[in-house]
Amino acid sequence: MRIIGIDPGYGILGFGVIDYEKNKHTLVDYGVIKTSKDLAFPDRLLHIGKRLNELLNIYKPDEMAVEELFFHKNAKTAMFVAQARGVILYVAREHDIPLYEYTPLQIKQGLVGYGRAEKIQIQQMVKIFLNLQKIPKPDDAADALAVAITHSNTKRYI
Amino acid sequence: MRIIGIDPGYGILGFGVIDYEKNKHTLVDYGVIKTSKDLAFPDRLLHIGKRLNELLNIYKPDEMAVEELFFHKNAKTAMFVAQARGVILYVAREHDIPLYEYTPLQIKQGLVGYGRAEKIQIQQMVKIFLNLQKIPKPDDAADALAVAITHSNTKRYI
Repeated sequence: MRIIGIDPGYGILGFGVIDYEKNKHTLVDYGVIKTSKDLAFPDRLLHIGKRLNELLNIYKPDEMAVEELFFHKNAKTAMFVAQARGVILYVAREHDIPLYEYTPLQIKQGLVGYGRAEKIQIQQMVKIFLNLQKIPKPDDAADALAVAITHSNTKRYI
Repeated sequence: MRIIGIDPGYGILGFGVIDYEKNKHTLVDYGVIKTSKDLAFPDRLLHIGKRLNELLNIYKPDEMAVEELFFHKNAKTAMFVAQARGVILYVAREHDIPLYEYTPLQIKQGLVGYGRAEKIQIQQMVKIFLNLQKIPKPDDAADALAVAITHSNTKRYI
């Protein structure tokens, strides 16, 4: 089972691809999709969709796990993130990839076991689950791996 | 110059296609894209994107005019609409169609001449501009035609 995790965003979007077989997690790839402030917003969306298409063609994940939207203090930022998230869901469904959504709380509980975990604790668990030497950088990529691992751990019990 | 106007939504999305030549507006088509509540949200986005793709292939508009997001009282609804809007912008840019955005205030000012115009006044102006017998229905389609006409009238002075 190959899972791609996504931390939605429009300036920087994190992705993480893992394989999960027989209770074992293996890192495949992680990184970010960045878009320039100099692009018009619709062109930033175009760039995100195209790059995501490429990633899905390269890695052919079986399932996608995406962080749920939380309501930013800044409603305007939230609306831009939401528009980017729409593109992510659309492109995933164009590839016929099943989608699963997890809240930040579920991710914390899934990885660390309680909902008030700090960011660094999440990142440490990502490192341990994937047997890495270092915490993956930047944070957006680590967050994307965290949602992918949460999905694998949740599905285990289904 | 062919313009497609879009009134964004995820349950019902209005579209209106007009031709604008020598200060004259001609109706080409209008209608709505509806998605069933029974579909998962990502599948509603897929349906919207596919249908919009079809419309763009059929009518080959030169430009697209889209209503800007306004902040709903209901933040959750606003986030769903924003995700659908992201798909609309993405699909338009995939077709390399230039995008223009108008606020409800700009649409009112563009069609009726002042910002406190009532919905029915906007719809009457749509009917007059396009030389129709009746006001187009449903409201979402009339709103989409209104933003298309606003765009044509704005561009006139550019």
